[in-house]
Amino acid sequence: MVVILKQGTSKDEIVKITKNIEKRGLKVSTVVGDKLIVLGLIGDTSKVDSTILEANDCVERVLHVQEPFKRANRMFKPEDTIVDVNGVKIGGGHFGLIAGPCSVESEEQIIEIAKSVKKSGATMLRGGAFKPRTSPYSFQGLKDEGLDLLLKAKKATGLPIVTEIMSTDYLDRFANDVDVIQVGARNMQNFELLKELGKIRKPILLKRGLSATYEELLMSAEYIMAGGNDNVILCERGIRTFETYTRNTLDVAAIPVIKRLSHLPIIIDPSHSAGKWWLVEPLAKAAVAAGADGLIIEVHNDPANALCDGQQSIKPDKFDSLVQELKMIAKAVGKEI
Amino acid sequence: MVVILKQGTSKDEIVKITKNIEKRGLKVSTVVGDKLIVLGLIGDTSKVDSTILEANDCVERVLHVQEPFKRANRMFKPEDTIVDVNGVKIGGGHFGLIAGPCSVESEEQIIEIAKSVKKSGATMLRGGAFKPRTSPYSFQGLKDEGLDLLLKAKKATGLPIVTEIMSTDYLDRFANDVDVIQVGARNMQNFELLKELGKIRKPILLKRGLSATYEELLMSAEYIMAGGNDNVILCERGIRTFETYTRNTLDVAAIPVIKRLSHLPIIIDPSHSAGKWWLVEPLAKAAVAAGADGLIIEVHNDPANALCDGQQSIKPDKFDSLVQELKMIAKAVGKEI
Amino acid sequence: MVVILKQGTSKDEIVKITKNIEKRGLKVSTVVGDKLIVLGLIGDTSKVDSTILEANDCVERVLHVQEPFKRANRMFKPEDTIVDVNGVKIGGGHFGLIAGPCSVESEEQIIEIAKSVKKSGATMLRGGAFKPRTSPYSFQGLKDEGLDLLLKAKKATGLPIVTEIMSTDYLDRFANDVDVIQVGARNMQNFELLKELGKIRKPILLKRGLSATYEELLMSAEYIMAGGNDNVILCERGIRTFETYTRNTLDVAAIPVIKRLSHLPIIIDPSHSAGKWWLVEPLAKAAVAAGADGLIIEVHNDPANALCDGQQSIKPDKFDSLVQELKMIAKAVGKEI
Amino acid sequence: MVVILKQGTSKDEIVKITKNIEKRGLKVSTVVGDKLIVLGLIGDTSKVDSTILEANDCVERVLHVQEPFKRANRMFKPEDTIVDVNGVKIGGGHFGLIAGPCSVESEEQIIEIAKSVKKSGATMLRGGAFKPRTSPYSFQGLKDEGLDLLLKAKKATGLPIVTEIMSTDYLDRFANDVDVIQVGARNMQNFELLKELGKIRKPILLKRGLSATYEELLMSAEYIMAGGNDNVILCERGIRTFETYTRNTLDVAAIPVIKRLSHLPIIIDPSHSAGKWWLVEPLAKAAVAAGADGLIIEVHNDPANALCDGQQSIKPDKFDSLVQELKMIAKAVGKEI
Repeated sequence: MVVILKQGTSKDEIVKITKNIEKRGLKVSTVVGDKLIVLGLIGDTSKVDSTILEANDCVERVLHVQEPFKRANRMFKPEDTIVDVNGVKIGGGHFGLIAGPCSVESEEQIIEIAKSVKKSGATMLRGGAFKPRTSPYSFQGLKDEGLDLLLKAKKATGLPIVTEIMSTDYLDRFANDVDVIQVGARNMQNFELLKELGKIRKPILLKRGLSATYEELLMSAEYIMAGGNDNVILCERGIRTFETYTRNTLDVAAIPVIKRLSHLPIIIDPSHSAGKWWLVEPLAKAAVAAGADGLIIEVHNDPANALCDGQQSIKPDKFDSLVQELKMIAKAVGKEI
Repeated sequence: MVVILKQGTSKDEIVKITKNIEKRGLKVSTVVGDKLIVLGLIGDTSKVDSTILEANDCVERVLHVQEPFKRANRMFKPEDTIVDVNGVKIGGGHFGLIAGPCSVESEEQIIEIAKSVKKSGATMLRGGAFKPRTSPYSFQGLKDEGLDLLLKAKKATGLPIVTEIMSTDYLDRFANDVDVIQVGARNMQNFELLKELGKIRKPILLKRGLSATYEELLMSAEYIMAGGNDNVILCERGIRTFETYTRNTLDVAAIPVIKRLSHLPIIIDPSHSAGKWWLVEPLAKAAVAAGADGLIIEVHNDPANALCDGQQSIKPDKFDSLVQELKMIAKAVGKEI
Repeated sequence: MVVILKQGTSKDEIVKITKNIEKRGLKVSTVVGDKLIVLGLIGDTSKVDSTILEANDCVERVLHVQEPFKRANRMFKPEDTIVDVNGVKIGGGHFGLIAGPCSVESEEQIIEIAKSVKKSGATMLRGGAFKPRTSPYSFQGLKDEGLDLLLKAKKATGLPIVTEIMSTDYLDRFANDVDVIQVGARNMQNFELLKELGKIRKPILLKRGLSATYEELLMSAEYIMAGGNDNVILCERGIRTFETYTRNTLDVAAIPVIKRLSHLPIIIDPSHSAGKWWLVEPLAKAAVAAGADGLIIEVHNDPANALCDGQQSIKPDKFDSLVQELKMIAKAVGKEI
Repeated sequence: MVVILKQGTSKDEIVKITKNIEKRGLKVSTVVGDKLIVLGLIGDTSKVDSTILEANDCVERVLHVQEPFKRANRMFKPEDTIVDVNGVKIGGGHFGLIAGPCSVESEEQIIEIAKSVKKSGATMLRGGAFKPRTSPYSFQGLKDEGLDLLLKAKKATGLPIVTEIMSTDYLDRFANDVDVIQVGARNMQNFELLKELGKIRKPILLKRGLSATYEELLMSAEYIMAGGNDNVILCERGIRTFETYTRNTLDVAAIPVIKRLSHLPIIIDPSHSAGKWWLVEPLAKAAVAAGADGLIIEVHNDPANALCDGQQSIKPDKFDSLVQELKMIAKAVGKEI
């Protein structure tokens, strides 16, 4: 951490703020320039709240030198984290292919889709039981019944299930029955939920918030990991920008950036990124080429009658041919799907 | 709602989709142009999910004509909503002046600040007991003890208290003890929390999410109101943009826009908007001039030692002189503080 | 400037990069921490290109401590710049009220509006002769004839004229006939144009680009000032964000921020900010309350038949009553309009 | 175009605005719903200025149904445009690989790099002679001398040259000597420049502005094409978002979206998108996988001493190995590099 003091800060003030920082167990190296005075803070600054320093009248700005996340930081754990989901691995060269409908609608629907995506190569099944909808008047998911149906589909296919949790009220059920617990973009900074998920050991799929920076995403992972749960899979699902033709803007650079900053696996959701079914294919391909550890794709056998997100779902046969192409791209970049 | 069909859509397909829409209780008026075919939907479209229509192969785009929110919509309730907080009114010409520290730190601190801001003209006391922090290693608030101290400050000054809820786990305590329950920007789309808040009758202060549109803010209000709780106060607290000099960008146009779209009161948080104490004054003035129904301002007696957000807090004497200036601006625009 | 080196950078590499920097006439102070090494650069860093430093393998990041603009920087010229437009002053307590139609359409139109806005208190007349339009098929302005008509309106009212230049081809004519030469948001980084405007001495009204940071706006002013023309008036006219209900988002904080960073006057364009006539009034009021040095407002006597931007123009009588209200707000904040 | 009228608009007003629209050669189909009245405009609406309609008091909103660009629109020209650059083709299955330094620095530098990138497979040489720099104090390019050196490199290698024009002052020289004239992101809406480029027949490389929508990019292409020059190559080079870790955010979805909306070739600039050399490789791969028609990559033989953008340039050997990998990805998606 580097603290920039205002021009004209007196020696007394420099001594005062220096002592104040040293009290927190840090060393201070002072650089006095022509126009500005800089304090270099040496030691573990992750627990120093920069806003408190900024509240001092003599402080112009505080610059962060080190990332504030520690357990999620590749600097402190250079090797890739591999998350194990009932034997299905993701990260460190293992590609996770998660597919399924936006929401679970019926036993026939979920089992049919599960069988179909498994045949095409999916390694996990997604399906929403609790749905975060912008409107209170939209379909909110089958809830508990949806979870029951997911379990039936798991039994029928052996695919581990991935589904979203929206409240700590359901934590016990999810901890028991769900293989990968998803935290949606809108809950990425629902810190109470993250803390609770840190107390269990189930893998967590943490989606990047619509306007979350890389650092904020990793700090949310840090919340879970600080509780002792290191099984975190990150997911880029499009960010909000000025462009409104697409639902969101897929930030494909998130893949190499997150891989550099962190050891956690990062997967891509091409369905929510674009919000249009015909964009799923090119975005999925881009993700694999850029080195993603996995994909989560919405597949529906009857998009025009889907209870949600039909416009961004692809049909099973489209998914099947897409997987074949993805395998070739993976091979071209030295990976395997 | 207006549905744009693709060029070359056959008559049969038009008939099919028309029937499909009419099944939902709507009438359809068809306009056939040179290059495009347009279906105008007549009736209550608030319960039609446009994404389902978009999933049809023949649909090019769906355009929304009417806002999807109903209870929050000024079209259906033209007169301003006035929220009554233990006799302190806000909205419909009543200005709410909420002030206090970012977080409750001690009995002395909160009572001293409460007395001071009351003397300056504040009508409610703010203070965080549960703090949503980006880092798990930052101070998380005094929690239950913080609520106890707020109640002591209320007793000492008579000011109603405003504080943030972060989880449904604490709903009972908040419903009993807190006068205005705040939903933070990061929880604006925590729909499970919103639904629960719709079941009680306490006033809710709903903050706009960092990248939430006006419509999304109003849809989140609709979640609360759909449950029967109409006591919603909206709050613009800065949105996330490309400009990083300020913490966020205050969207001052939110005031007249929200007033046009909705009957709910809208207040401004100049402290979080800018993230710098020297910007609180000009932004608060701008808000009053633009017609805000209130302000929520962070005031701290010792910002340099505040446990959070010291850099954006102003001191009590600054707050006092600011209120005097705000009164004059309010007068100039025909209001009263 | 502060240079962060990578963990594990060898002493030899530190010596090498240090010598490289010292060659540019700067001193280097080295801080070696547990995990990172920081070089503090002392001296005039405005001519050091940080991207060159970042190209070194051992460099993690370069942090800017000082602003890269010099002539526009308040640090080097603490007193406000007052721009004199044929005797009409703007900046340093002098409020500039610029009004007129989006585009000049006819002699009657421009003279009628000019007389009307002058009567209401405008100190300068705006009117587009060369119009930057998104579509090549839209009305592009009356061009030279438009300038002729503006001169007639100036003769009839005495109001100095403000109009936009779109190409260096017209520089001579503008330098002769126009009182304030406007650079539009889309040309804010048309550096060739800025350089040419630096060679003349006419006041320049420089609009902030749609996605320009404060620093970039001031660097564009620096281009003009580096050529010797210090008569620069800055203009905030709304930035592009994710919110599409309004045409742009007025960044009202730009007023106090620019005033802190620079001595140049800053005015607000509430018409382009919002793109809706009914938002002009509240945004203009907010701007005055926040301390703007002036306003530029689109006024049209027949908006529904205007050749451009009719939707964001207000009528002369509305402008007249608005000015009365603005005067009262100005008084409330210790200013005079 | 669909015009939404306000609730309560009288029959007389509907008749008046309908006649007003019909005067422009369009037919109007009126849909009267419970709460709103909708006018469907039938015919060529590309020359109707929607802002004029919005200026009518009775108009609530105007919705665009058809894209406002015509010559650039795939609807009117379904087959891919293939741009021919002295025999080197781009678009319609032909991949353009443009490489070279950010700026031309010396004869040795540009010839060495040109030979090297040619050997690796580049089909065109890039190199800046006129450089748009944020700071007036940064290196501005060798200008005319830079163009001379590019011609020498062209002579030495046979590679067509791609370089940026910054002002119409140099149009004659560029029209004579340059093979592909680049319009930079900051000049994407420099309409006077675009109009002049429409009058010549040289291929134009048009870069997307930092905050330009797809539609605005295509409207800028339309400016060039409206003048008769159909040889336009579009380039996505990253957009400005809230994320500041990368210089810009590459919008990889721009590739399939532009291909759907337009017949023009679209290439990707992975160097400016990210602003970090280690991101060039994954972003280039993503672009090829998503179907880009080409790439423009900054290659420098000595990035740490480059006069500009060294931090985002890759070295020739890196470029060489990258091209080999890109060829395999291209093959996997049925293309050829």
